[in-house]
Amino acid sequence: MIFGTRPLIEAYRAGKEIEKIFLLRGGRSPQLSEVIQLAHRHGTPLQYVPNEKLNRLTRKNHQGVVAFMSQLSYQLIEQLIPMLYERGETPLILVLDRVTDVRNFGAIARTAEAMGVHALLLPTRGSATISADAVKTSAGALNRIAVCRAEKLKDTLTFLKESGLQIVAISEKSDRNIWNSELKGPVALLLGSEEDGVSSAYLKLADMSLRIPLVGETESLNVSVAAGMACYEVLKQRTQG
Amino acid sequence: MIFGTRPLIEAYRAGKEIEKIFLLRGGRSPQLSEVIQLAHRHGTPLQYVPNEKLNRLTRKNHQGVVAFMSQLSYQLIEQLIPMLYERGETPLILVLDRVTDVRNFGAIARTAEAMGVHALLLPTRGSATISADAVKTSAGALNRIAVCRAEKLKDTLTFLKESGLQIVAISEKSDRNIWNSELKGPVALLLGSEEDGVSSAYLKLADMSLRIPLVGETESLNVSVAAGMACYEVLKQRTQG
Repeated sequence: MIFGTRPLIEAYRAGKEIEKIFLLRGGRSPQLSEVIQLAHRHGTPLQYVPNEKLNRLTRKNHQGVVAFMSQLSYQLIEQLIPMLYERGETPLILVLDRVTDVRNFGAIARTAEAMGVHALLLPTRGSATISADAVKTSAGALNRIAVCRAEKLKDTLTFLKESGLQIVAISEKSDRNIWNSELKGPVALLLGSEEDGVSSAYLKLADMSLRIPLVGETESLNVSVAAGMACYEVLKQRTQG
Repeated sequence: MIFGTRPLIEAYRAGKEIEKIFLLRGGRSPQLSEVIQLAHRHGTPLQYVPNEKLNRLTRKNHQGVVAFMSQLSYQLIEQLIPMLYERGETPLILVLDRVTDVRNFGAIARTAEAMGVHALLLPTRGSATISADAVKTSAGALNRIAVCRAEKLKDTLTFLKESGLQIVAISEKSDRNIWNSELKGPVALLLGSEEDGVSSAYLKLADMSLRIPLVGETESLNVSVAAGMACYEVLKQRTQG
Protein backbone atom coordinates (compact mmCIF):
# COMPACT_ATOMS: atom_id res chain seq x y z
CA MET A 1 0.00 0.00 0.00
CA ILE A 2 1.27 3.45 -0.87
CA PHE A 3 -0.20 6.65 0.58
CA GLY A 4 0.52 10.24 -0.29
CA THR A 5 1.00 11.80 -3.69
CA ARG A 6 4.80 12.08 -3.62
CA PRO A 7 5.45 8.38 -2.73
CA LEU A 8 2.98 7.31 -5.43
CA ILE A 9 4.59 9.52 -8.08
CA GLU A 10 7.97 8.12 -7.10
CA ALA A 11 6.65 4.55 -7.27
CA TYR A 12 5.51 5.18 -10.85
CA ARG A 13 8.93 6.65 -11.71
CA ALA A 14 10.65 3.59 -10.25
CA GLY A 15 8.61 1.43 -12.61
CA LYS A 16 6.49 -0.12 -9.86
CA GLU A 17 3.21 -1.63 -10.95
CA ILE A 18 0.19 0.08 -9.38
CA GLU A 19 -2.92 -2.09 -9.18
CA LYS A 20 -5.50 0.47 -8.10
CA ILE A 21 -5.75 4.02 -6.72
CA PHE A 22 -8.29 5.46 -4.29
CA LEU A 23 -8.55 9.24 -4.68
CA LEU A 24 -10.30 11.76 -2.47
CA ARG A 25 -13.57 12.74 -4.11
CA GLY A 26 -13.39 16.43 -4.99
CA GLY A 27 -9.73 16.64 -3.99
CA ARG A 28 -7.61 19.22 -5.84
CA SER A 29 -3.89 19.89 -5.90
CA PRO A 30 -1.14 19.96 -8.54
CA GLN A 31 0.17 16.68 -7.06
CA LEU A 32 -3.23 15.01 -7.37
CA SER A 33 -3.38 16.16 -11.00
CA GLU A 34 0.00 14.59 -11.61
CA VAL A 35 -1.20 11.34 -10.01
CA ILE A 36 -4.29 11.33 -12.23
CA GLN A 37 -2.15 11.90 -15.31
CA LEU A 38 0.22 9.08 -14.38
CA ALA A 39 -2.71 6.76 -13.68
CA HIS A 40 -4.21 7.50 -17.09
CA ARG A 41 -0.89 6.99 -18.83
CA HIS A 42 -0.36 3.61 -17.12
CA GLY A 43 -3.98 2.54 -17.35
CA THR A 44 -4.31 2.23 -13.57
CA PRO A 45 -7.93 2.04 -12.38
CA LEU A 46 -8.93 5.11 -10.31
CA GLN A 47 -11.75 5.21 -7.82
CA TYR A 48 -13.03 8.41 -6.19
CA VAL A 49 -13.99 7.88 -2.55
CA PRO A 50 -14.95 10.01 0.47
CA ASN A 51 -12.33 10.99 3.03
CA GLU A 52 -13.67 8.44 5.55
CA LYS A 53 -12.78 5.57 3.22
CA LEU A 54 -9.19 6.81 2.90
CA ASN A 55 -8.94 7.26 6.65
CA ARG A 56 -10.12 3.70 7.14
CA LEU A 57 -7.39 2.46 4.78
CA THR A 58 -4.58 4.26 6.62
CA ARG A 59 -4.05 6.41 9.68
CA LYS A 60 -1.13 8.18 8.09
CA ASN A 61 -1.26 11.42 6.12
CA HIS A 62 -2.58 10.17 2.79
CA GLN A 63 -2.96 13.61 1.13
CA GLY A 64 -6.08 12.35 -0.61
CA VAL A 65 -4.54 9.29 -2.24
CA VAL A 66 -4.06 5.65 -1.28
CA ALA A 67 -2.79 3.13 -3.82
CA PHE A 68 -2.23 -0.59 -3.96
CA MET A 69 0.80 -2.10 -5.61
CA SER A 70 0.43 -4.92 -8.08
CA GLN A 71 1.03 -8.48 -6.88
CA LEU A 72 3.19 -8.76 -9.92
CA SER A 73 6.58 -7.18 -10.25
CA TYR A 74 7.81 -6.70 -13.75
CA GLN A 75 11.36 -7.72 -14.40
CA LEU A 76 13.88 -6.20 -16.74
CA ILE A 77 14.63 -8.53 -19.62
CA GLU A 78 18.06 -6.89 -19.91
CA GLN A 79 18.87 -8.19 -16.42
CA LEU A 80 17.08 -11.51 -16.74
CA ILE A 81 18.86 -12.86 -19.82
CA PRO A 82 22.45 -12.51 -18.48
CA MET A 83 21.25 -14.02 -15.19
CA LEU A 84 19.87 -17.07 -17.02
CA TYR A 85 23.16 -17.58 -18.83
CA GLU A 86 25.06 -17.25 -15.55
CA ARG A 87 22.89 -19.95 -14.05
CA GLY A 88 23.76 -22.18 -16.99
CA GLU A 89 20.24 -22.17 -18.38
CA THR A 90 19.17 -21.98 -22.00
CA PRO A 91 16.81 -19.01 -22.21
CA LEU A 92 13.27 -19.64 -23.42
CA ILE A 93 11.20 -16.47 -23.71
CA LEU A 94 7.63 -16.10 -24.92
CA VAL A 95 6.97 -12.80 -26.70
CA LEU A 96 3.32 -11.84 -27.04
CA ASP A 97 2.57 -9.28 -29.73
CA ARG A 98 -0.82 -7.67 -29.02
CA VAL A 99 -2.41 -10.57 -27.15
CA THR A 100 -5.24 -8.58 -25.63
CA ASP A 101 -7.69 -11.25 -24.48
CA VAL A 102 -7.24 -11.59 -20.74
CA ARG A 103 -8.25 -15.25 -20.65
CA ASN A 104 -5.87 -16.15 -23.46
CA PHE A 105 -3.12 -14.25 -21.69
CA GLY A 106 -3.78 -16.05 -18.40
CA ALA A 107 -3.89 -19.44 -20.12
CA ILE A 108 -0.58 -18.70 -21.86
CA ALA A 109 1.04 -17.76 -18.54
CA ARG A 110 -0.17 -21.01 -16.98
CA THR A 111 1.20 -23.11 -19.83
CA ALA A 112 4.44 -21.15 -20.02
CA GLU A 113 5.22 -21.58 -16.33
CA ALA A 114 4.38 -25.28 -16.57
CA MET A 115 6.63 -25.80 -19.60
CA GLY A 116 9.71 -24.06 -18.23
CA VAL A 117 9.45 -20.73 -20.06
CA HIS A 118 11.66 -18.20 -18.24
CA ALA A 119 9.68 -15.07 -18.99
CA LEU A 120 6.77 -13.56 -20.84
CA LEU A 121 7.69 -10.43 -22.77
CA LEU A 122 4.93 -7.97 -23.64
CA PRO A 123 4.90 -4.60 -25.34
CA THR A 124 3.94 -1.94 -22.79
CA ARG A 125 1.07 -0.80 -24.99
CA GLY A 126 -1.56 -2.99 -26.63
CA SER A 127 -1.25 -5.99 -24.34
CA ALA A 128 -3.77 -7.58 -22.01
CA THR A 129 -4.06 -5.91 -18.63
CA ILE A 130 -2.66 -8.15 -15.94
CA SER A 131 -5.88 -8.09 -13.98
CA ALA A 132 -7.14 -10.29 -11.20
CA ASP A 133 -8.96 -12.22 -13.94
CA ALA A 134 -5.69 -12.87 -15.75
CA VAL A 135 -4.06 -14.11 -12.56
CA LYS A 136 -7.05 -16.36 -11.91
CA THR A 137 -7.08 -17.81 -15.45
CA SER A 138 -3.36 -18.44 -15.09
CA ALA A 139 -4.10 -20.59 -12.01
CA GLY A 140 -1.72 -18.33 -10.12
CA ALA A 141 1.15 -18.92 -12.57
CA LEU A 142 1.43 -15.16 -13.18
CA ASN A 143 2.77 -14.86 -9.65
CA ARG A 144 5.49 -17.41 -10.41
CA ILE A 145 6.71 -16.51 -13.87
CA ALA A 146 8.76 -13.43 -14.78
CA VAL A 147 6.85 -10.87 -16.81
CA CYS A 148 8.86 -8.28 -18.73
CA ARG A 149 7.68 -5.27 -20.65
CA ALA A 150 9.12 -3.69 -23.74
CA GLU A 151 8.57 0.00 -24.39
CA LYS A 152 9.83 -0.59 -27.95
CA LEU A 153 9.50 -4.25 -28.82
CA LYS A 154 11.73 -3.89 -31.89
CA ASP A 155 14.63 -2.72 -29.74
CA THR A 156 14.06 -5.48 -27.23
CA LEU A 157 13.94 -8.14 -29.95
CA THR A 158 17.24 -6.75 -31.27
CA PHE A 159 18.65 -6.99 -27.75
CA LEU A 160 17.52 -10.63 -27.55
CA LYS A 161 19.16 -11.42 -30.90
CA GLU A 162 22.38 -9.78 -29.75
CA SER A 163 22.16 -11.88 -26.60
CA GLY A 164 22.25 -15.03 -28.68
CA LEU A 165 18.56 -15.90 -28.78
CA GLN A 166 16.90 -17.09 -31.97
CA ILE A 167 13.73 -15.12 -32.62
CA VAL A 168 11.21 -17.71 -33.81
CA ALA A 169 7.87 -16.39 -35.03
CA ILE A 170 4.95 -18.80 -34.95
CA SER A 171 2.90 -18.00 -38.02
CA GLU A 172 0.40 -19.84 -40.19
CA LYS A 173 1.82 -18.01 -43.16
CA SER A 174 5.14 -19.80 -42.90
CA ASP A 175 5.79 -22.90 -45.02
CA ARG A 176 8.28 -24.42 -42.60
CA ASN A 177 6.96 -26.89 -40.03
CA ILE A 178 7.86 -26.33 -36.42
CA TRP A 179 8.61 -30.00 -35.86
CA ASN A 180 11.34 -30.05 -38.51
CA SER A 181 13.21 -27.21 -36.87
CA GLU A 182 15.93 -27.29 -34.26
CA LEU A 183 14.85 -25.36 -31.17
CA LYS A 184 17.34 -26.53 -28.60
CA GLY A 185 19.33 -23.31 -28.29
CA PRO A 186 18.30 -20.03 -26.66
CA VAL A 187 14.94 -19.12 -28.17
CA ALA A 188 12.37 -16.36 -28.07
CA LEU A 189 9.04 -17.65 -29.39
CA LEU A 190 7.03 -14.81 -30.91
CA LEU A 191 3.25 -15.15 -31.01
CA GLY A 192 0.85 -12.65 -32.51
CA SER A 193 -2.55 -11.19 -31.93
CA GLU A 194 -5.72 -13.24 -32.12
CA GLU A 195 -6.84 -11.27 -35.17
CA ASP A 196 -3.91 -11.06 -37.52
CA GLY A 197 -0.93 -12.89 -36.06
CA VAL A 198 2.57 -11.49 -35.66
CA SER A 199 3.12 -7.92 -36.97
CA SER A 200 5.10 -7.81 -40.19
CA ALA A 201 7.69 -5.50 -38.60
CA TYR A 202 8.54 -8.22 -36.09
CA LEU A 203 8.30 -11.02 -38.65
CA LYS A 204 11.10 -9.26 -40.55
CA LEU A 205 13.24 -9.23 -37.41
CA ALA A 206 12.66 -12.93 -36.73
CA ASP A 207 15.40 -15.44 -37.52
CA MET A 208 12.79 -17.86 -38.70
CA SER A 209 9.08 -18.22 -39.05
CA LEU A 210 7.50 -21.60 -38.32
CA ARG A 211 4.03 -22.98 -38.70
CA ILE A 212 2.16 -25.51 -36.67
CA PRO A 213 0.79 -27.87 -39.32
CA LEU A 214 -2.99 -27.76 -39.68
CA VAL A 215 -4.75 -30.46 -41.63
CA GLY A 216 -8.41 -29.46 -41.27
CA GLU A 217 -10.37 -26.53 -42.59
CA THR A 218 -9.79 -24.37 -39.52
CA GLU A 219 -7.40 -21.66 -40.59
CA SER A 220 -5.75 -20.84 -37.31
CA LEU A 221 -5.39 -22.05 -33.76
CA ASN A 222 -6.31 -20.18 -30.63
CA VAL A 223 -3.16 -18.31 -29.57
CA SER A 224 -2.97 -20.04 -26.18
CA VAL A 225 -3.21 -23.45 -27.85
CA ALA A 226 -0.55 -22.50 -30.43
CA ALA A 227 1.71 -21.20 -27.64
CA GLY A 228 1.22 -24.48 -25.80
CA MET A 229 2.20 -26.59 -28.82
CA ALA A 230 5.28 -24.46 -29.50
CA CYS A 231 6.42 -24.70 -25.85
CA TYR A 232 5.76 -28.43 -25.93
CA GLU A 233 7.97 -28.84 -29.01
CA VAL A 234 10.81 -26.86 -27.42
CA LEU A 235 10.59 -28.74 -24.12
CA LYS A 236 10.50 -32.07 -25.92
CA GLN A 237 13.57 -31.27 -28.02
CA ARG A 238 15.49 -29.99 -25.03
CA THR A 239 14.53 -32.94 -22.84
CA GLN A 240 15.33 -35.56 -25.45
CA GLY A 241 18.75 -33.93 -26.00
CA MET B 1 -37.57 -25.79 -38.78
CA ILE B 2 -40.12 -28.13 -37.29
CA PHE B 3 -43.74 -27.18 -36.65
CA GLY B 4 -46.46 -29.07 -34.87
CA THR B 5 -46.28 -31.09 -31.69
CA ARG B 6 -46.20 -34.55 -33.24
CA PRO B 7 -43.29 -33.86 -35.67
CA LEU B 8 -41.33 -32.29 -32.79
CA ILE B 9 -41.94 -35.24 -30.46
CA GLU B 10 -40.85 -37.56 -33.25
CA ALA B 11 -37.74 -35.48 -33.90
CA TYR B 12 -36.75 -35.87 -30.24
CA ARG B 13 -37.37 -39.62 -30.43
CA ALA B 14 -35.19 -39.86 -33.53
CA GLY B 15 -32.34 -38.27 -31.56
CA LYS B 16 -32.41 -35.00 -33.49
CA GLU B 17 -30.85 -32.04 -31.77
CA ILE B 18 -33.33 -29.21 -31.12
CA GLU B 19 -31.77 -25.78 -30.76
CA LYS B 20 -34.78 -23.76 -29.57
CA ILE B 21 -38.56 -23.99 -29.27
CA PHE B 22 -41.16 -21.25 -29.65
CA LEU B 23 -44.36 -22.15 -27.79
CA LEU B 24 -47.75 -20.48 -27.90
CA ARG B 25 -48.16 -18.34 -24.79
CA GLY B 26 -51.04 -19.78 -22.75
CA GLY B 27 -51.36 -22.79 -25.05
CA ARG B 28 -52.61 -26.03 -23.45
CA SER B 29 -52.85 -29.57 -24.70
CA PRO B 30 -51.48 -32.99 -23.70
CA GLN B 31 -49.12 -32.79 -26.71
CA LEU B 32 -47.80 -29.40 -25.64
CA SER B 33 -47.17 -30.81 -22.15
CA GLU B 34 -45.20 -33.64 -23.69
CA VAL B 35 -43.17 -31.17 -25.73
CA ILE B 36 -42.42 -29.15 -22.59
CA GLN B 37 -41.33 -32.29 -20.75
CA LEU B 38 -39.06 -33.36 -23.60
CA ALA B 39 -37.58 -29.87 -23.81
CA HIS B 40 -36.79 -29.89 -20.10
CA ARG B 41 -35.25 -33.33 -20.26
CA HIS B 42 -33.00 -32.33 -23.18
CA GLY B 43 -32.24 -28.87 -21.86
CA THR B 44 -33.73 -27.19 -24.93
CA PRO B 45 -34.43 -23.46 -24.45
CA LEU B 46 -38.16 -22.67 -24.55
CA GLN B 47 -39.65 -19.28 -25.37
CA TYR B 48 -43.32 -18.42 -24.95
CA VAL B 49 -44.58 -16.17 -27.73
CA PRO B 50 -47.94 -14.81 -29.00
CA ASN B 51 -49.74 -16.55 -31.85
CA GLU B 52 -48.74 -13.80 -34.31
CA LYS B 53 -45.06 -14.64 -33.86
CA LEU B 54 -45.71 -18.32 -34.65
CA ASN B 55 -47.79 -17.36 -37.68
CA ARG B 56 -44.95 -15.20 -38.91
CA LEU B 57 -42.56 -18.14 -38.62
CA THR B 58 -44.74 -20.50 -40.65
CA ARG B 59 -47.97 -20.51 -42.58
CA LYS B 60 -48.57 -24.15 -41.85
CA ASN B 61 -50.56 -25.58 -38.96
CA HIS B 62 -48.07 -25.19 -36.11
CA GLN B 63 -50.39 -26.34 -33.29
CA GLY B 64 -48.73 -23.80 -31.00
CA VAL B 65 -45.17 -24.93 -31.49
CA VAL B 66 -42.33 -24.07 -33.84
CA ALA B 67 -38.85 -25.43 -33.24
CA PHE B 68 -35.43 -24.98 -34.78
CA MET B 69 -33.08 -27.87 -35.29
CA SER B 70 -29.51 -27.63 -34.16
CA GLN B 71 -26.88 -26.69 -36.73
CA LEU B 72 -25.06 -29.63 -35.35
CA SER B 73 -26.03 -33.19 -36.12
CA TYR B 74 -24.68 -35.77 -33.77
CA GLN B 75 -23.19 -38.80 -35.41
CA LEU B 76 -23.17 -42.36 -34.23
CA ILE B 77 -19.67 -43.45 -33.28
CA GLU B 78 -20.69 -47.03 -34.09
CA GLN B 79 -21.22 -45.96 -37.70
CA LEU B 80 -18.34 -43.52 -37.91
CA ILE B 81 -15.49 -45.88 -36.93
CA PRO B 82 -16.18 -48.56 -39.59
CA MET B 83 -16.59 -45.76 -42.13
CA LEU B 84 -13.15 -44.35 -41.26
CA TYR B 85 -11.56 -47.78 -41.67
CA GLU B 86 -13.31 -48.22 -45.01
CA ARG B 87 -11.89 -44.90 -46.17
CA GLY B 88 -8.43 -46.16 -45.21
CA GLU B 89 -8.04 -43.65 -42.40
CA THR B 90 -6.50 -44.22 -39.00
CA PRO B 91 -9.15 -43.16 -36.49
CA LEU B 92 -8.28 -40.39 -34.07
CA ILE B 93 -11.05 -39.67 -31.57
CA LEU B 94 -11.05 -37.16 -28.72
CA VAL B 95 -13.08 -38.29 -25.72
CA LEU B 96 -14.04 -35.55 -23.28
CA ASP B 97 -14.99 -36.76 -19.82
CA ARG B 98 -16.97 -34.00 -18.05
CA VAL B 99 -15.52 -31.02 -19.86
CA THR B 100 -18.23 -28.57 -18.86
CA ASP B 101 -16.67 -25.18 -19.60
CA VAL B 102 -18.17 -23.99 -22.87
CA ARG B 103 -15.13 -21.96 -23.88
CA ASN B 104 -12.78 -24.87 -23.25
CA PHE B 105 -15.09 -27.13 -25.23
CA GLY B 106 -15.21 -24.70 -28.15
CA ALA B 107 -11.42 -24.27 -28.10
CA ILE B 108 -10.95 -28.05 -28.10
CA ALA B 109 -13.28 -28.43 -31.10
CA ARG B 110 -11.32 -25.77 -32.99
CA THR B 111 -7.99 -27.45 -32.29
CA ALA B 112 -9.35 -30.93 -32.97
CA GLU B 113 -10.73 -30.01 -36.37
CA ALA B 114 -7.46 -28.26 -37.25
CA MET B 115 -5.35 -31.25 -36.21
CA GLY B 116 -7.30 -33.90 -38.10
CA VAL B 117 -9.30 -35.42 -35.24
CA HIS B 118 -12.21 -37.38 -36.73
CA ALA B 119 -14.72 -36.92 -33.92
CA LEU B 120 -15.35 -35.57 -30.47
CA LEU B 121 -17.02 -38.09 -28.18
CA LEU B 122 -18.94 -36.78 -25.17
CA PRO B 123 -21.02 -38.46 -22.51
CA THR B 124 -24.67 -37.43 -22.95
CA ARG B 125 -24.78 -36.14 -19.39
CA GLY B 126 -22.28 -33.84 -17.68
CA SER B 127 -20.80 -32.30 -20.81
CA ALA B 128 -20.76 -28.71 -21.99
CA THR B 129 -23.90 -27.62 -23.83
CA ILE B 130 -23.18 -27.10 -27.48
CA SER B 131 -24.45 -23.55 -27.40
CA ALA B 132 -24.01 -20.69 -29.82
CA ASP B 133 -21.13 -19.62 -27.55
CA ALA B 134 -19.42 -22.97 -28.01
CA VAL B 135 -19.78 -22.74 -31.79
CA LYS B 136 -18.38 -19.20 -31.68
CA THR B 137 -15.39 -20.14 -29.50
CA SER B 138 -14.73 -23.04 -31.87
CA ALA B 139 -14.44 -20.52 -34.73
CA GLY B 140 -17.14 -22.52 -36.48
CA ALA B 141 -15.20 -25.80 -36.23
CA LEU B 142 -18.13 -27.43 -34.42
CA ASN B 143 -20.02 -27.28 -37.72
CA ARG B 144 -17.23 -29.16 -39.47
CA ILE B 145 -16.20 -31.87 -37.01
CA ALA B 146 -18.27 -34.93 -36.10
CA VAL B 147 -19.66 -34.86 -32.57
CA CYS B 148 -20.78 -38.15 -31.04
CA ARG B 149 -22.53 -38.79 -27.77
CA ALA B 150 -22.27 -41.75 -25.46
CA GLU B 151 -25.18 -42.65 -23.21
CA LYS B 152 -22.82 -44.97 -21.32
CA LEU B 153 -19.25 -43.92 -21.92
CA LYS B 154 -17.86 -47.19 -20.50
CA ASP B 155 -19.71 -49.21 -23.13
CA THR B 156 -18.61 -46.87 -25.89
CA LEU B 157 -14.97 -47.04 -24.77
CA THR B 158 -15.26 -50.82 -24.83
CA PHE B 159 -16.68 -50.59 -28.35
CA LEU B 160 -13.72 -48.43 -29.39
CA LYS B 161 -11.25 -50.95 -27.92
CA GLU B 162 -12.97 -53.78 -29.74
CA SER B 163 -12.73 -51.71 -32.90
CA GLY B 164 -8.96 -51.66 -32.59
CA LEU B 165 -8.46 -48.22 -31.03
CA GLN B 166 -6.00 -47.70 -28.22
CA ILE B 167 -7.62 -45.79 -25.37
CA VAL B 168 -4.99 -43.30 -24.23
CA ALA B 169 -5.79 -41.29 -21.13
CA ILE B 170 -3.96 -37.99 -20.70
CA SER B 171 -3.31 -37.68 -17.00
CA GLU B 172 -0.85 -35.78 -14.83
CA LYS B 173 -0.83 -38.75 -12.49
CA SER B 174 0.85 -40.99 -15.04
CA ASP B 175 4.62 -41.45 -14.97
CA ARG B 176 4.94 -42.20 -18.65
CA ASN B 177 5.69 -39.29 -20.98
CA ILE B 178 3.50 -38.81 -24.01
CA TRP B 179 6.48 -38.13 -26.25
CA ASN B 180 8.03 -41.53 -25.56
CA SER B 181 4.91 -43.37 -26.64
CA GLU B 182 3.92 -44.66 -30.02
CA LEU B 183 0.63 -43.09 -31.11
CA LYS B 184 0.57 -43.89 -34.81
CA GLY B 185 -2.23 -46.45 -34.72
CA PRO B 186 -5.96 -45.92 -34.18
CA VAL B 187 -6.26 -43.86 -31.01
CA ALA B 188 -8.91 -42.44 -28.73
CA LEU B 189 -7.40 -39.69 -26.57
CA LEU B 190 -9.26 -39.41 -23.29
CA LEU B 191 -9.22 -36.07 -21.48
CA GLY B 192 -10.81 -35.34 -18.16
CA SER B 193 -12.64 -32.59 -16.36
CA GLU B 194 -11.00 -29.30 -15.46
CA GLU B 195 -11.32 -30.14 -11.77
CA ASP B 196 -10.10 -33.67 -11.33
CA GLY B 197 -9.01 -35.13 -14.63
CA VAL B 198 -10.14 -38.43 -16.10
CA SER B 199 -12.54 -40.49 -13.94
CA SER B 200 -10.89 -43.52 -12.37
CA ALA B 201 -13.47 -45.85 -13.97
CA TYR B 202 -12.28 -44.75 -17.40
CA LEU B 203 -8.62 -44.71 -16.40
CA LYS B 204 -8.98 -48.42 -15.62
CA LEU B 205 -10.38 -49.05 -19.09
CA ALA B 206 -7.57 -47.15 -20.79
CA ASP B 207 -4.81 -49.08 -22.54
CA MET B 208 -2.32 -46.56 -21.29
CA SER B 209 -2.11 -43.38 -19.35
CA LEU B 210 0.32 -40.70 -20.47
CA ARG B 211 1.43 -37.42 -19.00
CA ILE B 212 2.46 -34.22 -20.66
CA PRO B 213 5.72 -33.38 -18.86
CA LEU B 214 5.49 -30.27 -16.69
CA VAL B 215 8.67 -28.70 -15.37
CA GLY B 216 7.33 -25.70 -13.45
CA GLU B 217 5.29 -25.41 -10.31
CA THR B 218 1.96 -25.34 -12.12
CA GLU B 219 0.32 -28.66 -11.38
CA SER B 220 -1.87 -29.05 -14.42
CA LEU B 221 -2.55 -27.59 -17.83
CA ASN B 222 -5.79 -26.12 -19.06
CA VAL B 223 -7.70 -28.99 -20.70
CA SER B 224 -7.84 -27.29 -24.10
CA VAL B 225 -4.08 -26.71 -24.04
CA ALA B 226 -3.43 -30.32 -22.97
CA ALA B 227 -5.74 -31.56 -25.73
CA GLY B 228 -3.83 -29.41 -28.21
CA MET B 229 -0.47 -30.82 -27.20
CA ALA B 230 -1.73 -34.41 -27.35
CA CYS B 231 -3.23 -33.88 -30.81
CA TYR B 232 -0.01 -32.21 -31.92
CA GLU B 233 2.03 -35.21 -30.78
CA VAL B 234 -0.24 -37.66 -32.63
CA LEU B 235 -0.27 -35.58 -35.81
CA LYS B 236 3.51 -35.21 -35.69
CA GLN B 237 4.08 -38.94 -35.27
CA ARG B 238 1.66 -39.81 -38.04
CA THR B 239 3.06 -37.22 -40.42
CA GLN B 240 6.69 -38.14 -39.84
CA GLY B 241 5.77 -41.79 -40.43
